Amino acid sequence: MKETTLKEIAETLGISITTVSKALKNYSDVSEKTRKAVYALAEELNYTPNSFAVNLRTKESKTIGLIIPEVVHHFFSNVINGIIAEAEKNGYLVIILQSNESLELEKKQVALLINKRVDGIIMSLSNESNNDFHIKEILRKEIPFVQFDKISKLIPSSKVIINDQKAAMEAVQHLIDKGCKKIAHIRGLENPQNSIDRFIGYKKALEKNGIPFDPKLVYACKSITFEQGVVFAKQIIEDDLGIDGIFVITDLVAIGVLAHFNEIGIQVPGQIAIIGFSNWFVSQVISPKLSTVDQPNYEMGVAAFGLLLEEIVCRKNGKPFEPKIVELGTSVIVRESTLKK
Amino acid sequence: MKETTLKEIAETLGISITTVSKALKNYSDVSEKTRKAVYALAEELNYTPNSFAVNLRTKESKTIGLIIPEVVHHFFSNVINGIIAEAEKNGYLVIILQSNESLELEKKQVALLINKRVDGIIMSLSNESNNDFHIKEILRKEIPFVQFDKISKLIPSSKVIINDQKAAMEAVQHLIDKGCKKIAHIRGLENPQNSIDRFIGYKKALEKNGIPFDPKLVYACKSITFEQGVVFAKQIIEDDLGIDGIFVITDLVAIGVLAHFNEIGIQVPGQIAIIGFSNWFVSQVISPKLSTVDQPNYEMGVAAFGLLLEEIVCRKNGKPFEPKIVELGTSVIVRESTLKK
Repeated sequence: MKETTLKEIAETLGISITTVSKALKNYSDVSEKTRKAVYALAEELNYTPNSFAVNLRTKESKTIGLIIPEVVHHFFSNVINGIIAEAEKNGYLVIILQSNESLELEKKQVALLINKRVDGIIMSLSNESNNDFHIKEILRKEIPFVQFDKISKLIPSSKVIINDQKAAMEAVQHLIDKGCKKIAHIRGLENPQNSIDRFIGYKKALEKNGIPFDPKLVYACKSITFEQGVVFAKQIIEDDLGIDGIFVITDLVAIGVLAHFNEIGIQVPGQIAIIGFSNWFVSQVISPKLSTVDQPNYEMGVAAFGLLLEEIVCRKNGKPFEPKIVELGTSVIVRESTLKK
Repeated sequence: MKETTLKEIAETLGISITTVSKALKNYSDVSEKTRKAVYALAEELNYTPNSFAVNLRTKESKTIGLIIPEVVHHFFSNVINGIIAEAEKNGYLVIILQSNESLELEKKQVALLINKRVDGIIMSLSNESNNDFHIKEILRKEIPFVQFDKISKLIPSSKVIINDQKAAMEAVQHLIDKGCKKIAHIRGLENPQNSIDRFIGYKKALEKNGIPFDPKLVYACKSITFEQGVVFAKQIIEDDLGIDGIFVITDLVAIGVLAHFNEIGIQVPGQIAIIGFSNWFVSQVISPKLSTVDQPNYEMGVAAFGLLLEEIVCRKNGKPFEPKIVELGTSVIVRESTLKK
């Protein structure tokens, strides 16, 4: 890369490097004539201040790191969108890393970002991750840090969350209100907090309505995929337990269930009602349209960057920082897949 | 952020900063005993080399910039995935910026990345962008640069592309082979090269089969959305021109057409066959399943980073660089929406 330096500008104009530098910073001890000459030449030669040198001086990189489990994911891509939009407004760039749900990769990526001296880190944990050393390390180094969506409750950082228990309770209550008597739950993986909380919400809703909890009605995903939904749809028909409603951990899996039921002629919602979670775009374009829980995603990204910036500014000014938790609202979206007559 | 410095390590061990620095670089004139002591203390104190200082020395940021029109998009999120996976393998971080299809924003982002001294830039142009100054500026500064998907043919950089004309011809030929006599085209916006090329492919396929081109059968999108598909589906029924097949610029719009036809009881493919473009995940889960053109996306990201790295290495070694064009293959995916009996 060909680069114009302060030295070239100084030599061309026959003045000192210090004068050039002062002129570019609009110092008052440089004459207006010199200042104009320096600006004109800098523009002509296409001078760009060396950002490494600027970083070294200010100790700020104006860059933040974002680690998420998956980029190709309706929810996460919307969160990314919110984060980079808000970061850009505030003059920050965003480095995005994908953990692929691997704890090993996530550890490596945290180390990379720390080494890169980012001004802060925003993260949604991989399914394998929890109260681990590499996360504590971020806090120990006093690097501004915000968790969102898949969080560790044990890590005392700022967080943007939804109330998964409450949201799940509302989804199951909706099935009960529509007359479902035997409600299955296709739950997520063992580790992630949101998977645990949605399962608890399912149980609480049953309890509240005097319906006994039956572990046989709980199907635990090995992977969060369309195919997993197809597998459990087959299983549910085979088990033949009289299930008339299903609350599914997320829309992608719910759509797999729906696709198989459509194929073998099970009426949805007539025979079995289905409600998903996360209001993925696809839910509105399939047939029957899928009822689901709407979860803010773009807003979650905006809030996460907001909390991070608060911490960055606070620490820069040498003030003690108290982590904050922002809880965003959710709502049940009623579509065809639960509209029993 | 609390940081351990070389000075602290030197003072604690009672040796010079130079010795600490040499020890950490494994210089041979430092005794094994001192080297071990320095490493042990550096580890204990959690010393991280200052990457700004390292950057200033090596003139490499090991960071690349990626500008794309949209993050929340099946195709682009897969490309991002390919780029960051490949970058990571090679020790590079990726800053991602979203132009929101705005030329103004794109210009600002290019300037930001140049100022940030990224080692290279990968870009898919916004719909408004073409042979513009900000792009030429990247080349003028000899910053390694790769275009993919939405490219400007006039900018002599490396490129990863598909053959949109050929792919579109194959899609339309498929409709003709299935017996369609009056084929409409829902085309993309005016400016993007891929929109122009797919339109040319549509015309060439008609010509090759002796079907006269009729401009009344071409519907030009104002936005690439589901809703736009619904609007044109209504229009096509209203126009009542005897259309029995539609080639749609992309799956998202095609699904809008399909949704409206489903709603008003038009049989697909019985009355009107539909083929989309880009093999979006949703195409397989709607009913009827959508025929489409499969376009490599993850592979496109991998290839784009590969070309960029080639240029980075070449320029680093002071060798002249010749831009390369990689063309990836496409294929027609036949599903229910074109399976006429």
